[in-house]
Amino acid sequence: MQRDTIIALDAMGGDHAPQEIVKGAVQAARDLGINVALVGIPERIIAELARYGPKSELISVVPALEVIEMDEQPAQAARHKKDSSMVVGLKMVKQGQADAFVSAGNTGAVMAGAIMYLGRLKGIERPSLVALLPFAGRLTVFLDVGANADCKPSYLLQFGQMASVYLEKVWNIPNPRVALLNIGEEDSKGNQLSLEAYELLKDSELNFIGNIEGKDIAKDQADVIVTDGFTGNVVVKTMEGVADFITGQLRQAMTSRWHYKLAAAVLLPAFNQLRRSMDYREYGAGPLLGINGLVFIGHGRSDAQAIVSALRVAREAVQSGMLEAMREMAPAPTRKAGQDSE
Amino acid sequence: MQRDTIIALDAMGGDHAPQEIVKGAVQAARDLGINVALVGIPERIIAELARYGPKSELISVVPALEVIEMDEQPAQAARHKKDSSMVVGLKMVKQGQADAFVSAGNTGAVMAGAIMYLGRLKGIERPSLVALLPFAGRLTVFLDVGANADCKPSYLLQFGQMASVYLEKVWNIPNPRVALLNIGEEDSKGNQLSLEAYELLKDSELNFIGNIEGKDIAKDQADVIVTDGFTGNVVVKTMEGVADFITGQLRQAMTSRWHYKLAAAVLLPAFNQLRRSMDYREYGAGPLLGINGLVFIGHGRSDAQAIVSALRVAREAVQSGMLEAMREMAPAPTRKAGQDSE
Repeated sequence: MQRDTIIALDAMGGDHAPQEIVKGAVQAARDLGINVALVGIPERIIAELARYGPKSELISVVPALEVIEMDEQPAQAARHKKDSSMVVGLKMVKQGQADAFVSAGNTGAVMAGAIMYLGRLKGIERPSLVALLPFAGRLTVFLDVGANADCKPSYLLQFGQMASVYLEKVWNIPNPRVALLNIGEEDSKGNQLSLEAYELLKDSELNFIGNIEGKDIAKDQADVIVTDGFTGNVVVKTMEGVADFITGQLRQAMTSRWHYKLAAAVLLPAFNQLRRSMDYREYGAGPLLGINGLVFIGHGRSDAQAIVSALRVAREAVQSGMLEAMREMAPAPTRKAGQDSE
Repeated sequence: MQRDTIIALDAMGGDHAPQEIVKGAVQAARDLGINVALVGIPERIIAELARYGPKSELISVVPALEVIEMDEQPAQAARHKKDSSMVVGLKMVKQGQADAFVSAGNTGAVMAGAIMYLGRLKGIERPSLVALLPFAGRLTVFLDVGANADCKPSYLLQFGQMASVYLEKVWNIPNPRVALLNIGEEDSKGNQLSLEAYELLKDSELNFIGNIEGKDIAKDQADVIVTDGFTGNVVVKTMEGVADFITGQLRQAMTSRWHYKLAAAVLLPAFNQLRRSMDYREYGAGPLLGINGLVFIGHGRSDAQAIVSALRVAREAVQSGMLEAMREMAPAPTRKAGQDSE
């Protein structure tokens, strides 16, 4: 009999590690029956586990004595800290001891480590980091968000192909709508990169719906939005900044007088509803696409709830055959944009 | 004696033209004593003016019988519609009949027309479109937001130089802090363009404070933020989209139950305070920098209040000697980034 799915979880990665990470693992084992291998410094993990009573047999502890900090230089850390929770976790996937690796730690280091220890999928020029944008209970896969600051048009095509497979397999969204982030809706708009990527996407087998502008990202127009890693990274951070600014201003405005405070208390459930509709924790962690192995990267701020979601999504990915589908994915055409399609 | 400052105003440009445009002109003349030349279809302008009683002698009407629509192809429209309010208004500036031109119309057409009829400032490779970001009553000049989808590093340096002169002259902000939009704070972060632009900015005479990330745009860290026109355009539209999404969700959440509605009514002034803190209308219109003449482009949604602000800012720009300062600005170095500074 095949062994159960096992998810390796970086117990030391993230702003709230190991407390929230371990807590999330305990909840995922208890509520969802997920097998979790907690990778990290054993004493610290065991101390956290002790808070939750007898250890579930679904949870194991895998020792890794080094820690890669959130602000460490990614490639160096991944290369030299061979006994870190990240490297040990990635190697578990490589050696078949785990089916997927989940980390809320140093994003760059996970990415560098994944390329180093698991390698790229054949036919994929660049792995891509994904953001799962939560808007009103709906999921948009947005990529690349920082793995590739400078992109070629063919990368963007491959991003669209990988994200489509991910959505079909893991989220059961058939024929996902793929859009290109651009500065206008017309196909004549854009910089050189987006003009060329447009042609590749148009000629592909994808369900390409054309350009989408920044103002429409939050609307339900596309399931996948592709862009280069520079623009993508700036966009997700801008969204975060604007959301923080608005909620901060709102809080300030609403506590400026005592009768505002009373009214705000009445509205608290409504505000919470709003917050939930934008809650990244629902989706847990985004996949690192293009890696020859399943790797999920969670938000540095991940709490236990986000970790539960991440583990759930990782298990779903394993069982969906997503990786196998990507391995079989037709290698992306490598012809230059600008040439006519045959 | 020198004649008074005259601002040519595109009466036909914008989503609410000519009604709100004419209304704004009337208010600016009445409340601020600004001389406004309303350019457009005379009957329509006069019909609107008639609503406000006897015409102020500060307001004149300059006939232009063609209209450039919001969705027209910009360069073609600017070239062929020679009797449009835009072209006539720009030519008034060229011929010295007006000191500045303000339009809330088709942005691309104003830009194309400005380059065609007024020309570029000497030493400036590319004019730039500016967004004035309103955050909590504070102004950040953000550029380029769409004039130049593909940029060279030297353009970004010139954007920083022009925006600094603008802030010093028109907004009395001495030694403005200039930042480069990037995907990390460290100087090793970025795409090829931002890495090279960083070096140019660092070696310049500007008050360059380094990289700034998307999440910090809304914080009071920089007075000027430079980026390429693709990223800039996507960023401002993303901000708009996120703000619309949040306020829409908030409205929905707060009207979902009757006691929420009551509480929301109490909070209305607080919400209005929030809205004011993000109100673009305060700043009226952004300058088109790098043009040999003063041109201001307002938001397509401009209402009378925004037009009043735009006219005020335009007059301030004329009287501040901003254009003269830009003409005297040392031509930007054209050496390639990567070379050491001498």
